[in-house]
Amino acid sequence: MQPHSTRRVDVVRFPGTRQDVDAVAVEEPLDIRVNGVAVAVTMRTPGHDEELALGFCVTEGLHPGGARVPPDFAANAVDVDVPDFDPAVLKRNFYTTSSCGVCGKGALEAVAVAAEPVDSALRVRTWLVADLPARLRAEQATFAATGGLHATGLFTTEGELVCLREDVGRHNAMDKVIGWAYADDRLPLSDSLLCVSGRLSFELVQKAAVAGCPIVVAVGAPSSLAVELAEAQRITLCGFTSADRVNVYTEAWRIER
Amino acid sequence: MQPHSTRRVDVVRFPGTRQDVDAVAVEEPLDIRVNGVAVAVTMRTPGHDEELALGFCVTEGLHPGGARVPPDFAANAVDVDVPDFDPAVLKRNFYTTSSCGVCGKGALEAVAVAAEPVDSALRVRTWLVADLPARLRAEQATFAATGGLHATGLFTTEGELVCLREDVGRHNAMDKVIGWAYADDRLPLSDSLLCVSGRLSFELVQKAAVAGCPIVVAVGAPSSLAVELAEAQRITLCGFTSADRVNVYTEAWRIER
Repeated sequence: MQPHSTRRVDVVRFPGTRQDVDAVAVEEPLDIRVNGVAVAVTMRTPGHDEELALGFCVTEGLHPGGARVPPDFAANAVDVDVPDFDPAVLKRNFYTTSSCGVCGKGALEAVAVAAEPVDSALRVRTWLVADLPARLRAEQATFAATGGLHATGLFTTEGELVCLREDVGRHNAMDKVIGWAYADDRLPLSDSLLCVSGRLSFELVQKAAVAGCPIVVAVGAPSSLAVELAEAQRITLCGFTSADRVNVYTEAWRIER
Repeated sequence: MQPHSTRRVDVVRFPGTRQDVDAVAVEEPLDIRVNGVAVAVTMRTPGHDEELALGFCVTEGLHPGGARVPPDFAANAVDVDVPDFDPAVLKRNFYTTSSCGVCGKGALEAVAVAAEPVDSALRVRTWLVADLPARLRAEQATFAATGGLHATGLFTTEGELVCLREDVGRHNAMDKVIGWAYADDRLPLSDSLLCVSGRLSFELVQKAAVAGCPIVVAVGAPSSLAVELAEAQRITLCGFTSADRVNVYTEAWRIER
């Protein structure tokens, strides 16, 4: 469990109006600054802030040299160094990845520009995919305490969990994992699987696409645009994944019986 | 069920590699324009787009005169008229509500500026609160089909559901309900309860605060900043709500045994 990831608050429990204390997941704003310029604010759970900022920048198409929390820790900020930073590129990326047109098709094309379709011959067994949510949950210390956090896990093809991050924001949990992998020089994630604890939105698949991950597994449902983007980027998308069930929406050839 | 809120996609179901068709929740970008100027893009489920845009603007502190989808429906845009629109105010609001400082305390103060603490003597029985999630779920047609949507419901003090909206984004579902209430001249929501299908973030409580709602009920967990904001705005915050359990984090006097 990370420092400051939970906070104790008073609670009255019904039935019975019992006064008690409960642990809740901490949510606080984080200011992400690139070369000293504020580029984004995200509501996140403190912990792994440098990885979060790196992952955010990488999945927006930047190539950061490093990230650090300023000496004034209370500032809730991270400074990212991007040697070849062009603010115009970032602005265009922000625009294109979220609005771009504005239509779903434009969004797909914008991601295609930022990331080549995933080129990976990786194949895994069904049972391994079906087992990932339980492996993820088993390691979710803060979720167990608060019930309030999303998680993303990075797994090997043998099902070994190599990085787990939790956050009140699902995109932040994914950014933290990708930022960790970037700092450890592990991108692209051609031989890995990403597993998320909730539903799959366009934004999460976009991040996985930029990180070059061939198989994305979710406990919950995918959205329409998540499925379309996975198809366009040749990512295998698995939803409603549990011990006895896996729905494979795209590139099912990667999942072996 | 709204038109275009679900889409059919191919799926391979394991175990057994059975080819099938699945319904997924539609996710598409929506461009929100105020007096012709693009102010925000949100990934939303189509349907009730005017209400979404109205609710978004109202909870950002604007006073819209109306909203309409342009004749070119494929544009995925909504035009909102705001007679007294000052772009600088909107920019400041966007900044302050999400970053503001940047610290949690600053965020609380920014909301306090935009919205007075809720002044409502409303009190309800525990059993009524405990019953809201089941009543909400019973009416969630699209969730039943896709498993992929968040919901917000507006309830009377008798537990009657007066407005239900679903969306892939939890903040959008809340905006649609508040936009509906605004268009129907029902704000502030001093004598109503809001119930959300998932977890409670700062952003959701902020929207409820601006709408003047005294009791917010969630099926899931609240974040730390959600609890702090509810306390500051004198909102009764209920989490982990189910038929036999309600956790009341703030202003518990409104909940009667």
